[in-house]
Amino acid sequence: MLKAIQIVGSSSGFASCRFRKPQPNSAFSLISRKPILTTSETLLLPASQLHSHKSCFRDFRMSSTHSKSSSSSSVAVQSTILQGNIRKINFCQFCGGPNKHEIPDGEEKVRAICTRCGKITYENPKMVVGCLIEHDKKILMCRRKIHPSYGLWTLPAGYMEIGESAAEGAIRETWEEANAEVEVQSLFAQLDIPLIGQTYMIFLAKLKNPHFSPGPESSECQLFELDDIPFDSLAFSSMLVSLNLYIEDIKVGRPKFHYGVINKRPGTSPSDIHAYTLDFHMQS
Amino acid sequence: MLKAIQIVGSSSGFASCRFRKPQPNSAFSLISRKPILTTSETLLLPASQLHSHKSCFRDFRMSSTHSKSSSSSSVAVQSTILQGNIRKINFCQFCGGPNKHEIPDGEEKVRAICTRCGKITYENPKMVVGCLIEHDKKILMCRRKIHPSYGLWTLPAGYMEIGESAAEGAIRETWEEANAEVEVQSLFAQLDIPLIGQTYMIFLAKLKNPHFSPGPESSECQLFELDDIPFDSLAFSSMLVSLNLYIEDIKVGRPKFHYGVINKRPGTSPSDIHAYTLDFHMQS
Repeated sequence: MLKAIQIVGSSSGFASCRFRKPQPNSAFSLISRKPILTTSETLLLPASQLHSHKSCFRDFRMSSTHSKSSSSSSVAVQSTILQGNIRKINFCQFCGGPNKHEIPDGEEKVRAICTRCGKITYENPKMVVGCLIEHDKKILMCRRKIHPSYGLWTLPAGYMEIGESAAEGAIRETWEEANAEVEVQSLFAQLDIPLIGQTYMIFLAKLKNPHFSPGPESSECQLFELDDIPFDSLAFSSMLVSLNLYIEDIKVGRPKFHYGVINKRPGTSPSDIHAYTLDFHMQS
Repeated sequence: MLKAIQIVGSSSGFASCRFRKPQPNSAFSLISRKPILTTSETLLLPASQLHSHKSCFRDFRMSSTHSKSSSSSSVAVQSTILQGNIRKINFCQFCGGPNKHEIPDGEEKVRAICTRCGKITYENPKMVVGCLIEHDKKILMCRRKIHPSYGLWTLPAGYMEIGESAAEGAIRETWEEANAEVEVQSLFAQLDIPLIGQTYMIFLAKLKNPHFSPGPESSECQLFELDDIPFDSLAFSSMLVSLNLYIEDIKVGRPKFHYGVINKRPGTSPSDIHAYTLDFHMQS
């Protein structure tokens, strides 16, 4: 059975505003670079309170922090601006008419509704799939040659495509970014980032052979000892969390499966990858 | 460590065309209602072969099998018609101009490209989140009062929304479809269905109180003993797989975490929920 654990960031006194847990004795532990897991409890979210939880994020406006290439970067950023929990879709993809953004009859959320044909364009979170590749007790990482996070280090990862599985997408992204052929071994982490409408799925993988080199989106690929992972120049919070969890798992014996929600701490910079809370962490 | 297991459907002699596994001694086991797990092996997918694997699905044209309500049903179906692994997006959501569907410079896949402003609209798989709710050794299920699969039974589930986590979405959908307040305990299954661009995430959950009743999209909600689950009138393959895996887990002691890929068997009807293979099943 998976255990549910909440980890709250190092900002003392902070409590997640997305989830308010009704247990009287909720305990919190700190996470910085390496999380310390002290509390085991189930995720207890009353459905009737979901609406009020969401409202605290209504005013956020946030650009995507992950796009596949420089050419698609502007599209990704433009299409992922969140306004009141929906993304801005200006025109109808069915007829080309201008959209209005209102709550349709019988629904509760603001949607993009065509003023010409009346159809609604729904937008849903995107899945980012990638690999945590183990080789000789080292981890393969790539230095980004594209924006955003140009020059920073990441695990090979990218958007899952229509027509492929998450595992297949993770293998493809690794091939594209590191010219590395891998075999996937297990799903290691699913990390939701609600604020930017993304879910990361990171697979544990092995190199099929020791060959790798930078793909078009990377300037460098390198195997890092766990003690040498460039934590001070990581590209994304999702990678920071994944690597922290992996290191903790290795310390105690073996990697597990982890589910968690990465929430940016209110008032912090979107670009500060350390300013997050990992909420409702559940591990196998 | 998760184990990787491949389960192939009951059509004797069938081999998945999406994944060709290079191990010389690949073994297969059968899955019908209740899978028998006999083989333990890692997913070994050479990245260089991904393109050829995908080509066997190029000619499929498939409508979405899951939409939230009758009003949104037509939109969901229309927007999820797969043509050569992309969905049909006729007009640009940024400027309203007509799209062409071509492979952009520097990419390998057909995309929707605006003939007026040149921007690309990317489409990605959608996440469906739901709950497998245990109560007194029974499972809560809903009979659908909407299309598709009107009148058939399902676990409460629906599309994950922008601005929420997968767990939060699963709790919301349970509230909407069964008026049930639940607490999520663990992620039980992630099941990709590449052909229709969906990924199911099913959480194990408990009722916070014994109250439930049909929501607007359900005609009935009922707790079923495991032996009485209506397997002959289930709505979706994803639910068939989830329930089968759950029953197997209960038989051997406890639920695990499962990752798998549901591939429709070529030549079978999209509406036949039993005509699938569960490929690259990995379990904790």
